[in-house]
Formats: sequence, structure tokens, C-alpha cells
Amino acid sequence: MGYKLISTWKMSFHKMSEAKRMLKIKYSLQEIIEAVIMDVEDNPDFHSVGYGGLPNNEGEVELDAGYMDGDSLAFGAVSAVKNIRNPILVASSLTKGKTNNHLTGKGAEKYAKENGFKTRRMLTGKAKEKYLDKVKENSHDTVCVIGKDLNGSMAVGVSTSGLFMKHPGRVGDSPIIGSGFYCDSQIGGVAATGIGEDIMRGCLSISTVNYMRQGLNAQQACEKALFTYLERVNNEPEAISLIALDAKGNYGACSTLADFPFVILDENNEARLMVYLGNEKRIVEADQKWLANYKGD
Amino acid sequence: MGYKLISTWKMSFHKMSEAKRMLKIKYSLQEIIEAVIMDVEDNPDFHSVGYGGLPNNEGEVELDAGYMDGDSLAFGAVSAVKNIRNPILVASSLTKGKTNNHLTGKGAEKYAKENGFKTRRMLTGKAKEKYLDKVKENSHDTVCVIGKDLNGSMAVGVSTSGLFMKHPGRVGDSPIIGSGFYCDSQIGGVAATGIGEDIMRGCLSISTVNYMRQGLNAQQACEKALFTYLERVNNEPEAISLIALDAKGNYGACSTLADFPFVILDENNEARLMVYLGNEKRIVEADQKWLANYKGD
Repeated sequence: MGYKLISTWKMSFHKMSEAKRMLKIKYSLQEIIEAVIMDVEDNPDFHSVGYGGLPNNEGEVELDAGYMDGDSLAFGAVSAVKNIRNPILVASSLTKGKTNNHLTGKGAEKYAKENGFKTRRMLTGKAKEKYLDKVKENSHDTVCVIGKDLNGSMAVGVSTSGLFMKHPGRVGDSPIIGSGFYCDSQIGGVAATGIGEDIMRGCLSISTVNYMRQGLNAQQACEKALFTYLERVNNEPEAISLIALDAKGNYGACSTLADFPFVILDENNEARLMVYLGNEKRIVEADQKWLANYKGD
Repeated sequence: MGYKLISTWKMSFHKMSEAKRMLKIKYSLQEIIEAVIMDVEDNPDFHSVGYGGLPNNEGEVELDAGYMDGDSLAFGAVSAVKNIRNPILVASSLTKGKTNNHLTGKGAEKYAKENGFKTRRMLTGKAKEKYLDKVKENSHDTVCVIGKDLNGSMAVGVSTSGLFMKHPGRVGDSPIIGSGFYCDSQIGGVAATGIGEDIMRGCLSISTVNYMRQGLNAQQACEKALFTYLERVNNEPEAISLIALDAKGNYGACSTLADFPFVILDENNEARLMVYLGNEKRIVEADQKWLANYKGD
């Protein structure tokens, strides 16, 4: 079985299209996941991740990120960090320790600076304008990447600036192992995007992995975890989306949204932009008509 | 079925013994859970929770707490907060919001002050001495309380100062839904104490709840979740303990430790100090001999 990758949202498509070349020149799984996420973090046009991300209710951009190695179950996460250029790199570096794997706020920023991670003023003019206009923005789109390499090793990475106008210090699902991400190379990997608090109440990433553990494939597990949870909480959550990749290499995606775009890639095919259609509960390939109508990232 | 409560460590016994009286005078489940945890938070002799808790590697006491309502699956959590007298009260108050349920660091402290929660300088002279002596202390004992009331409503609360000499901003399992705590009144509640990072890698609270969902009782689910995880990670974690209460009212506890004391209470009996014996994999009532030999909290 070869390399497989799956990532959330159209915004990840650009770098996923290059990832195939990275596979050929033998990048590690971690390097590829980091590269796809950094490409989104560094792009000021995406207002829900990294540079250009929308600020909290005090006008400051606070970022969350997480990374998990499915072989060792080692994880790293940062939450509520300011002015760190690539939170995903800090999160992945924190997988090395036996303890102190999730660092938050000033303590996380201290670690990042002491370990030479690049800093950057993350608030762009455009993001500040949106803050001053207080335009209601549905900014809760997390970039998530799950991958499997030639040896069957799996990993997942996620990065976000969280909810627009959130309370300072608000921690969403993305840096929370089991909620925003989970990965076990023996079973599969899962990542979530949407309203973090709703994802956390259901611990949807580990719950989906646990359904795969019981024998469901990636697609069946995403549907079972999301729909079981929605029923339990009276279908009140508005925006939850999941992607999954099981150890056999099957992709899965599910969402409460009418259109949830995600990207898949393997060695034998170019990266493909797919769409989970929430109303029809099925997955289709994005065509020109869909692209013309889609307004989101 | 009447009231049932289970809590971690001998340090929770004092207030659990009074809780029976609180049941009679109709305290709510949340009030009882908060009262038991506050009693430990306010006691300077316990160096792993609240006032008198051991500091991080910069000599500052940073606290974590979490609370979950098993009816609505609403949760609240605070992480890495300084000088908040009762973190459990801030965590439980955060269950009210639809978002911003987990607040960390300065943002959490701001919320606590704005909402009138008591502040207190949490570093005691005794705790500072231990810091200056850099005595190796196994300070990772979280106070956890799970309860079920007359209507079958369930809830869980946890509070800790985390690992001694942790990195500033380190977030342990206690404020992490699914790792340090989880509760669903239809299934059961679980809470964890020990090395947070090891508990988080396994998301042990939600994993235990998921085994109860599959039909195991509280005791079977604790054993299945802990032993399955230990096998997966080559038995490397040294200190993990779980308590559970299922919706039928069965208690459960499991631990990697030779002696893990916990407390159980129901309307018909006084609070009882029990011990899970890790080497014998069984639960006994604590007797005078055990009490005389036990050195911990």
C-alpha cells in the first residue's frame, strides 16, 4: 500500500497538488503534513488559520495547533499562542517530550522563542478591518491533514485561529487530542473542523477512531460518530465536519454542512478536490459548476 | 435509585463524609461535587491541588480544572490559571456558554475576575520550600468527583495543580474533556488522575465511557480501557488511575499503582475509603493496617 493523504477545505488543495512531487523526492510524512499546513498558515487570504487569521474579541489573533504520531501515540499541541508564525511546527516539535506536550499561552510562546521558531505579527490589515466592522464571519475552518506512508505509519496535523470574536484564552477543539485530532497507525486517523465546543462535547476524533477499532471503515466510522452524536444532542450543532483515513487506506468524510470540500491524494493520482454533500449525504468530485458557486475557503 | 458519589484519593474522604448530610438537606449534585473539590482546593496540606499546590519550573502555581454536565454534555474548563482560589467554580460556571467553554491562562483569569470569582496567592511557604529544594515529588494527584442524583442526572468535576516542575503553560489531562473527565447521564461518568500526558494519549475517560456504551459495567470498562491502552503503549506509563460510575449506579476503579485509594458514598451508607490494589488487581476496603502504612494523600 502506498502513500495516502486527506485534508480539509479547498484552501489545502494548492499544496496538496504539490505533495505528490514531495512523495517522489522522499519527504517524510511529517514534513509533508507540515508543508501543507504551513502553506495555509502563511497565506493571508485564509482568515481562519495562521497569518491573516481573524482576532479574538480584543483584536488579538490567538492560534491553536496539534500534531499526533500514530505509531507511538505521541502528540504535541499549542493553544492560545500569539505571534508565532507556524504553530504547527511548534506543536509537532512538542511530540518529542514525555511530558509538557500541550503548552498554552505565554508558556508556549516562551518555548517557541527559546527553541528558535519564527515569530510574526499575525494580524493583517484585512483581518483587522473585519474585526473593526464586526462583520459576522463564520470563521471556524481548521486546516487538517491526515497521512499514511509506505510503511503504514500514520500521522495527523491541524491548525486554526479559532472562532472569530472568541473570548481571550478560548481553547477550541484543534489542540485537544481526541476532539480535534487523533491517530493510531494500527487503526486510523481522524481530524475535525467546525464549532470546536460542539466537537469537544462529543470527543468526535477519538470516537470515530473507536468505531474504526470496532471494524467500521473510515467512511462508516465518520458517519456513525457524527450522526450518533447529533442525535444525542438533538441536532443542535450547526457546523461540524470530519475527515478520516483508516489503516487499510480508505478515506472518509462527513459533515453537517451542505457542502464540505476536502482533498485526497495518493501516489497513483493527482490531488482531487472532493465534496461531501450534507443534504444528500454523499461524496462527489468538485466540478466546474460547484467551484463557480462555492464561496468559502 | 438514590444518590451515588465516587471520588479520588484519601484527601477527598473528609468532605465526602459530610456529603451524606448535604444530600439530606437537598444540595444539588453540582453543589456537592463543587463542595468536595473546594475542600481539597482550599487545604494547603495537599500539594497537588489548589492552594498549596506545587509550582511549575518558574516557581508559579498554575491550576487546571474541569466540569461536565452529563445531561446536556455541556462542559467547562480552565487551564494554566494563576491565583484563582477555586478553579472548579470557574470551570463549572463555563458550562453555561454555548462557546468559550475552555479558557486558558490570562484570558481565563480575566473571565474569573470579571465574574467575581475569589483570587488568592496560591503559593504557600511549604510549597515554595519544596520548589527551592527541588525535591522530586510525585505530585500528580487530581481530585476527581463523579456523582449521580435521584433523577439519574450525572456530573463530574476535577481539579489539580498538575505536574511539579512542569513547563509554564503546560496543560495536563484534567481540563481536557475526554481525557481527564467525561460524563453522559445515559451511559456513565469517568475521571482520571496520574501523569496527564499518558492519560491524554489514550483519551482514557471517553474511551472508558465508550466501553460502558458497549455494555460493560463501570469496573469492567475501567479495566478494559486502562489495560488495552497499557498494552498498546508497551506498559510504559507509570501512574494512571481511573474512577467510574455507570448509569446503573455501579462503581469502578483501576490503576497502575500498587495502592490507589478512592471514596464511595450513597444514601444508605457512610462514605467508605476503598483501595484498588494494582498488584492484585482487586478492590478492598481500607483498614487500619493499610492506613498506618499509606504515605500519600
